[in-house]
Amino acid sequence: MGDLFLPVIYGSVREGRVSFPVAEFVEAELAQRPGVETRLYDPRDLPLGNLVRRVHEMATPERAVAEFAAAMERADGFVLVTPEYNYGYPGTLKNLIDHLTHQWRRKPFALVGAGGISGGLRAIDGLRLVIPGVGGFTVPIAVPVQSVAAEFDSNGPKDPEKWRKRLTPLFHELEWYARALQGARSAGSAPP
Amino acid sequence: MGDLFLPVIYGSVREGRVSFPVAEFVEAELAQRPGVETRLYDPRDLPLGNLVRRVHEMATPERAVAEFAAAMERADGFVLVTPEYNYGYPGTLKNLIDHLTHQWRRKPFALVGAGGISGGLRAIDGLRLVIPGVGGFTVPIAVPVQSVAAEFDSNGPKDPEKWRKRLTPLFHELEWYARALQGARSAGSAPP
Amino acid sequence: MGDLFLPVIYGSVREGRVSFPVAEFVEAELAQRPGVETRLYDPRDLPLGNLVRRVHEMATPERAVAEFAAAMERADGFVLVTPEYNYGYPGTLKNLIDHLTHQWRRKPFALVGAGGISGGLRAIDGLRLVIPGVGGFTVPIAVPVQSVAAEFDSNGPKDPEKWRKRLTPLFHELEWYARALQGARSAGSAPP
Amino acid sequence: MGDLFLPVIYGSVREGRVSFPVAEFVEAELAQRPGVETRLYDPRDLPLGNLVRRVHEMATPERAVAEFAAAMERADGFVLVTPEYNYGYPGTLKNLIDHLTHQWRRKPFALVGAGGISGGLRAIDGLRLVIPGVGGFTVPIAVPVQSVAAEFDSNGPKDPEKWRKRLTPLFHELEWYARALQGARSAGSAPP
Repeated sequence: MGDLFLPVIYGSVREGRVSFPVAEFVEAELAQRPGVETRLYDPRDLPLGNLVRRVHEMATPERAVAEFAAAMERADGFVLVTPEYNYGYPGTLKNLIDHLTHQWRRKPFALVGAGGISGGLRAIDGLRLVIPGVGGFTVPIAVPVQSVAAEFDSNGPKDPEKWRKRLTPLFHELEWYARALQGARSAGSAPP
Repeated sequence: MGDLFLPVIYGSVREGRVSFPVAEFVEAELAQRPGVETRLYDPRDLPLGNLVRRVHEMATPERAVAEFAAAMERADGFVLVTPEYNYGYPGTLKNLIDHLTHQWRRKPFALVGAGGISGGLRAIDGLRLVIPGVGGFTVPIAVPVQSVAAEFDSNGPKDPEKWRKRLTPLFHELEWYARALQGARSAGSAPP
Repeated sequence: MGDLFLPVIYGSVREGRVSFPVAEFVEAELAQRPGVETRLYDPRDLPLGNLVRRVHEMATPERAVAEFAAAMERADGFVLVTPEYNYGYPGTLKNLIDHLTHQWRRKPFALVGAGGISGGLRAIDGLRLVIPGVGGFTVPIAVPVQSVAAEFDSNGPKDPEKWRKRLTPLFHELEWYARALQGARSAGSAPP
Repeated sequence: MGDLFLPVIYGSVREGRVSFPVAEFVEAELAQRPGVETRLYDPRDLPLGNLVRRVHEMATPERAVAEFAAAMERADGFVLVTPEYNYGYPGTLKNLIDHLTHQWRRKPFALVGAGGISGGLRAIDGLRLVIPGVGGFTVPIAVPVQSVAAEFDSNGPKDPEKWRKRLTPLFHELEWYARALQGARSAGSAPP
């Protein structure tokens, strides 16, 4: 148990999704940071699908969904790991974000993209515009994983040290914002 | 039958979707333009859901999906009517776009947004960045419908003349690009 | 003197700039918030022009420029007031941002747009993508001023109470982030 | 003389601008395409600076500016070559675009970015949102030049064949749109 809970959310349900090992590596690395608790959430385990109703509008959400919503509410910040489809984030990831509301508010989001030549930079930028819509913000640093199919396979990164070095500043920045705001949120300053 | 086929695609499956009448009005107006054939496609009728497999990867897509893909292939251009959820397009609309590939290529997209104060301008801009990813382009003009819940109800717009005037330049521009490129596409200049 | 220094930066030098009174009103309102010191910076007073050299690369920057850089370094956060030209922020504002570097880092930016039907929402979104490039972040709330030429003249807003109500949540949010991070920055946690 | 006039516009005036050789190479390659006339425009030669007045509002624009405006009016399409500063296009390039109006209308823009890890992809996306604001559109393909300082020096690209192959589909696509629309524009269909 850490003083910070920073879940990792993966953004795709597509068959043969080559960037899932990136999310697994992010979770494993983040779990080793002092004072950090984390867990990887995979949309394949969440029956959210297309946005028909938001979680708080559901009479009795399925247990997996209810637990997901409760975990996001408890979180101090998030890492989103997203592939890039057609120059944007997957619809699945947008649906997942849209299903919740206050759970994201006043919390920092760290973004990790995955793709070919772009490394998911365009999915990252799309998310930078969406996150303020749920009352959160994205930390300035982001990590694009270029040539993801060559860099990662089902065993993880071919060069773990390279990706550890790229991720460290992102984790540092996320934790810095998460710690600074955790105190301010619990100090109970009434939001406007 | 017209010389141009310009389908209208609506972007949401959400319960109580207040912008569906905008899509119905767009279809009705577009149907009256000389030489234009149109039809409204509603994602509620298409079992596409989250992106697991693209249509050309499915062994036997359901009939509604196969017909949708064939219609998009025949089209000369498109009107997307999109609500704005959390400063972005619905995930449902992104999934729908991602399910197809060459069907969108070298064709113009006209964008109609719907929302409150923004009129869906942010969903429109999100789509401007995604459409190039499938090889299409967006016509410069776009129509945001601000205060959509006050302007439209299930019977359509409260002031049809106002919205007819707003949509006319969009239709004109879409048809101009669609006609110019229809000839060039069928002239068979080999794409790179 | 307040415990927070939150300068207002206006984004245009164009003749007949109708949104300058918005910046003046923002400054006047912000000055009345308890514990807040502010000042309006106008690019007409800053000989920055096109980006040839950043301030720290200049041998001897002009006095106005040196004072501007020092003020931005001392600031705890910023309000940018920007008109929208051709669906984007003015080049002048981008040049001004690009002239500085570490002065913007780990600080919150509040965005106020001005325009016609868009209220500058597209300039706002453009800035949401740029600010992370200098190591800052934008607070989730933003205020678009639609129909600015009808709402404001050289005497200020025609309906001050309306705009006071719109700006209050923005100021509240900016101050909340600025206070929370001011402590964390001065606690000296080494950046990565 | 070709049947298509496709000028190249470079986006920066910064000292030591490492991506200027990219623009020179683009011009040299484009000049060899059958039927294409081109010319490189450098903002250092154009006293446009910050946007104070648009060209058509100037009583007597300087000769270089008047010639530039006339050339853009005659053009059938454009290539913009842009570095990326702080995740966006240079203010100089935005000012240049904002100085003109109808000269850009209903014409295709091809985008070439230059940067480090991003190859200017974020400057490219910023321009995709701005070009519709002047009534133009961007062709779907774009070319990011990653690690520009390693790939190009003042003599041009270290591996010309590599960059020739990357640029060819972009030129092909730009010419395809430019030819298709040149006819439609001169057929005089009245714009809305």
